[in-house]
Amino acid sequence: MSPSATADSASRACDLLVRADAVITQDDARRVLTDAAVAIGDGLVLEVGDYADLDARWVPRQRLDLSGKMVMPGLVNGHTHLPMTLLRGFADDLPLMEWLEGHIWPVEAKLNEDMLDIGARLGCAELIRTGCTAFLNGYFHEHITGDAASSCGLRAVLGEGFFAFPSPFFPTAEACWEAIRELEARFSNNPLVRTAVTPHAAFTVPPEILAASYELAESLDIPWQTHLAESPIETSVCLGKYGMRPVEILRREGLLSPRVTLHHCVDVEEREIAQLAASGANVVHNPASNLKLCSGMSPVQAMLDAGVNVGLGTDGASSNNQLNMFRDMGLAALLGKIRHGDARAVNAQAALDMATRNSARCLGWPELGRIEAGYPADMIALDLFSPNLMPVFNHVSHAVYASTGMEVCMTMVAGEVLYLYGDFRTLDVSGLRKEAVRCAKWVRNAFGK
Amino acid sequence: MSPSATADSASRACDLLVRADAVITQDDARRVLTDAAVAIGDGLVLEVGDYADLDARWVPRQRLDLSGKMVMPGLVNGHTHLPMTLLRGFADDLPLMEWLEGHIWPVEAKLNEDMLDIGARLGCAELIRTGCTAFLNGYFHEHITGDAASSCGLRAVLGEGFFAFPSPFFPTAEACWEAIRELEARFSNNPLVRTAVTPHAAFTVPPEILAASYELAESLDIPWQTHLAESPIETSVCLGKYGMRPVEILRREGLLSPRVTLHHCVDVEEREIAQLAASGANVVHNPASNLKLCSGMSPVQAMLDAGVNVGLGTDGASSNNQLNMFRDMGLAALLGKIRHGDARAVNAQAALDMATRNSARCLGWPELGRIEAGYPADMIALDLFSPNLMPVFNHVSHAVYASTGMEVCMTMVAGEVLYLYGDFRTLDVSGLRKEAVRCAKWVRNAFGK
Repeated sequence: MSPSATADSASRACDLLVRADAVITQDDARRVLTDAAVAIGDGLVLEVGDYADLDARWVPRQRLDLSGKMVMPGLVNGHTHLPMTLLRGFADDLPLMEWLEGHIWPVEAKLNEDMLDIGARLGCAELIRTGCTAFLNGYFHEHITGDAASSCGLRAVLGEGFFAFPSPFFPTAEACWEAIRELEARFSNNPLVRTAVTPHAAFTVPPEILAASYELAESLDIPWQTHLAESPIETSVCLGKYGMRPVEILRREGLLSPRVTLHHCVDVEEREIAQLAASGANVVHNPASNLKLCSGMSPVQAMLDAGVNVGLGTDGASSNNQLNMFRDMGLAALLGKIRHGDARAVNAQAALDMATRNSARCLGWPELGRIEAGYPADMIALDLFSPNLMPVFNHVSHAVYASTGMEVCMTMVAGEVLYLYGDFRTLDVSGLRKEAVRCAKWVRNAFGK
Repeated sequence: MSPSATADSASRACDLLVRADAVITQDDARRVLTDAAVAIGDGLVLEVGDYADLDARWVPRQRLDLSGKMVMPGLVNGHTHLPMTLLRGFADDLPLMEWLEGHIWPVEAKLNEDMLDIGARLGCAELIRTGCTAFLNGYFHEHITGDAASSCGLRAVLGEGFFAFPSPFFPTAEACWEAIRELEARFSNNPLVRTAVTPHAAFTVPPEILAASYELAESLDIPWQTHLAESPIETSVCLGKYGMRPVEILRREGLLSPRVTLHHCVDVEEREIAQLAASGANVVHNPASNLKLCSGMSPVQAMLDAGVNVGLGTDGASSNNQLNMFRDMGLAALLGKIRHGDARAVNAQAALDMATRNSARCLGWPELGRIEAGYPADMIALDLFSPNLMPVFNHVSHAVYASTGMEVCMTMVAGEVLYLYGDFRTLDVSGLRKEAVRCAKWVRNAFGK
């Protein structure tokens, strides 16, 4: 990047100039530009505007002509468990506890690191294919997901999960904190990978461990995330154990703050929504998973109205069964209307905000989720020649209601193109399929499926 | 087709032999075959079975190697309004009546036949792309949709819609009946196109006209379809006008029978479900549209348990905003669980049945929706190299929960390939886009959008 020495109006060099029929910016004014361009340098957006203007102003080293496409920010997945992608479709149509105890947990206990790696890379392939550029994870052996994301060029926030101690993974809390510190140190020089402290849930982790882990997050100055209020059953368990509902457990321990991201929040009352809003805590909505496990319908519009930052996530592929943010974005908009009895609830712009800017805040990475000068160049393009995107009256409506996610024909993170017109540039999908087939065979044999 | 003169075990000629990694047959035993093949002749399936067996038994004129793909029956869309595809995304996030009266009806009143044709062909393109091979339509100037479907190679059942008389379309009931007879005659020699009598709804068409139109359907021996019990608001209108709920209006007039297909049935009570089941009337579930217009959640599992034949539809693209049966199939399974408070409700097999065999009965075309010797060769293939379909534990689960519809890489009707690996063989999609852009510009200018 060598800006010319002359006045601002003169030509300046940039790495890449992208041209598109339209750009959904998701900037503060939510501008949608037509016949537009984005100038990119050093992994950042340098300028967004009319193509003719930018073409006159910038001298790009490379050009990417996305005529017939619309560009938008890469979607941000606020909640997933990437290695579980290996168990996609392993068990369906079951209630949460039967699904976990009878099917998922017995298999997970036997998966080795090689298998988790394959699951994580499968997940990355699907995220890239469906236009997701950053995700907040929660699982075990999180260095595996970190390495997978990094090698694929995706942004990840890793969440090494823990329950009570001693556990099969960590004999003591101090051992767990040390593992999280190591994870944080391991990726400290990697611009794509960050870490979050990740207790499983208020009904599985004792309050004093929740509180101690929050102190760790404060000392490392990283996000703290947990599952919360996923279903009425969870509420019953919390009431039985502690005489308090899930939100109250966190509130009493002083664990509601802007550092905090809470996954699900299906079973939350009006008073609790006000408490969440006042605290600045973030919530991630996971509509497909909540429906599939019959957990309930989260009061998303009520939370948005109260001022809660509500992002969007897919949850794991074994309870979704996709990692397709477009699917969950459309579902959030559709389901919100029924939940609130109002066809205006969770409108297209609100759903797109959830999947971009709001989710970015849930990751503790608020500069993601928009296309604006000075912000990271994480962008995707959708093919407007896909029959389901014809004609166009409203680009935001098409992103939310008409897209399947498979119209994505370009995925870019930090100015690097990861996927273009069917070509995965950081992944060998055919090789990955062979590995997945081998793993699935092992799982089927081991569990008699 | 010239079967060899020798014994049955000797080689026989067929038009096409399709090989695939797996075939979801949807036969009575719901068999899923692996390393399988389908022999096709004269537009019909001749045999389905192991590839090695069929390869030894048949001498095909052509072969289609779908290794790495899974084959399944083409999906059957039980309810749509194809020309409305032109208004995709024109108005969103609005309650039903405001959406209709303030946005959709004023535009529809000004659309000419050229525009309806473009809308219908756009719809056909999306149906073909997302693996739908037959649909039950309802709109005006239905010869347009019939011609579009026929030229694209899709199966269609046309429904010339009507309200009370006189109307802008039909001065008298007799004029309307004549138009329906003409439609039936026009396509009588076309194996792909049929007709159904299509009053709009019990709250917009007087009972005596409903009854008279049903007599017409009986005399022509064709299906009779109508919107019914779409929302509690409709129920209120019916109670106000006739002192009866929608199902009761039809029942009193003797209009519940296996000839009848009822779209939506969201607001139906237990007693009414039993009446529907006893009558043999068919129901089409439209989950995306019901959510988007905030109509409610249909009690699908209760209807299935009672023995009602429940098919699946997308409704029009202006209330969905897709014509993607895979999206509605997944949604039916997810939503059914929340509607009934049971994660086992509307399981993957039930949802696939709805989108294939059950919808076929709703069209009055029960031989569709399965891959079985002697039945029409309407089939699609899904690419198992799509990252979201890796790995495979259960093919039916993947079709319902993991597919977006865009994994479809082959669509075939009556043995004719309409789409293969991105190539539309019966449609010029680029030309269609130009026409759609032109129409959308006209609509935007005319209505100040």
